[in-house]
Amino acid sequence: MSKTAVLIITHGNFGVELIKSVEMIMGEQEDAKALGIKLGESIEDLKRETEKIILKNQEEGKDTLIFVDILGGSPSNISLYMLKKYENIKLITGVNMIMLIETFQSRDFEKIDMLVEKILNSAIEGMKEIKF
Amino acid sequence: MSKTAVLIITHGNFGVELIKSVEMIMGEQEDAKALGIKLGESIEDLKRETEKIILKNQEEGKDTLIFVDILGGSPSNISLYMLKKYENIKLITGVNMIMLIETFQSRDFEKIDMLVEKILNSAIEGMKEIKF
Repeated sequence: MSKTAVLIITHGNFGVELIKSVEMIMGEQEDAKALGIKLGESIEDLKRETEKIILKNQEEGKDTLIFVDILGGSPSNISLYMLKKYENIKLITGVNMIMLIETFQSRDFEKIDMLVEKILNSAIEGMKEIKF
Repeated sequence: MSKTAVLIITHGNFGVELIKSVEMIMGEQEDAKALGIKLGESIEDLKRETEKIILKNQEEGKDTLIFVDILGGSPSNISLYMLKKYENIKLITGVNMIMLIETFQSRDFEKIDMLVEKILNSAIEGMKEIKF
């Protein structure tokens, strides 16, 4: 079974901080990277950086699971381009902490298709209004 | 109709960065605050800070819509305490960018109950695997 590497791509810095926040809870995680695009920064640079990470994962025999903040904008546009160009990539929109916790807990035991399903189920279950 | 103020509480800094990332897309937002707890920081300080924001919102006649990263841990424990103690508070778990965009787009037009429903529906709809 291929290993699954995580790559988060967001507007701004929140994906980078999201990984740090999850690691506060779960400890340091291998193969977990985040990229962000800031106002005025080059989309081409972000694209190059993304491709470099995907190619490195491929060389190491790893799938790449990309999370983006929203569908629309540079993070998802670049991810869609990669999804067309390369195999062994999956793309999930709407990243949050629940998704990442499920990913890090389950990625060593699930193939990527089943992993994606599990992540989305956990996220849907975990997003709710809490009332008394 | 009461105005709705947003308060995000997370492990680490990602809530703070999430607001900045949303503002990159939507421009600056009023009544949008974020707090984070870092390793070794005092839970009592976070609780005091949270309460201060809620009371200020109350004074100004605003509801407080709290978003936390996950159910479990200090951010949600403190929020649950506030939910018991004060009225005009709602609590949603699993914060992501989709939720915030929906909140900022809709909060001036919806009462908080309907707003919460709308936010959760948008988030569930927006979280998906993208395939070709």
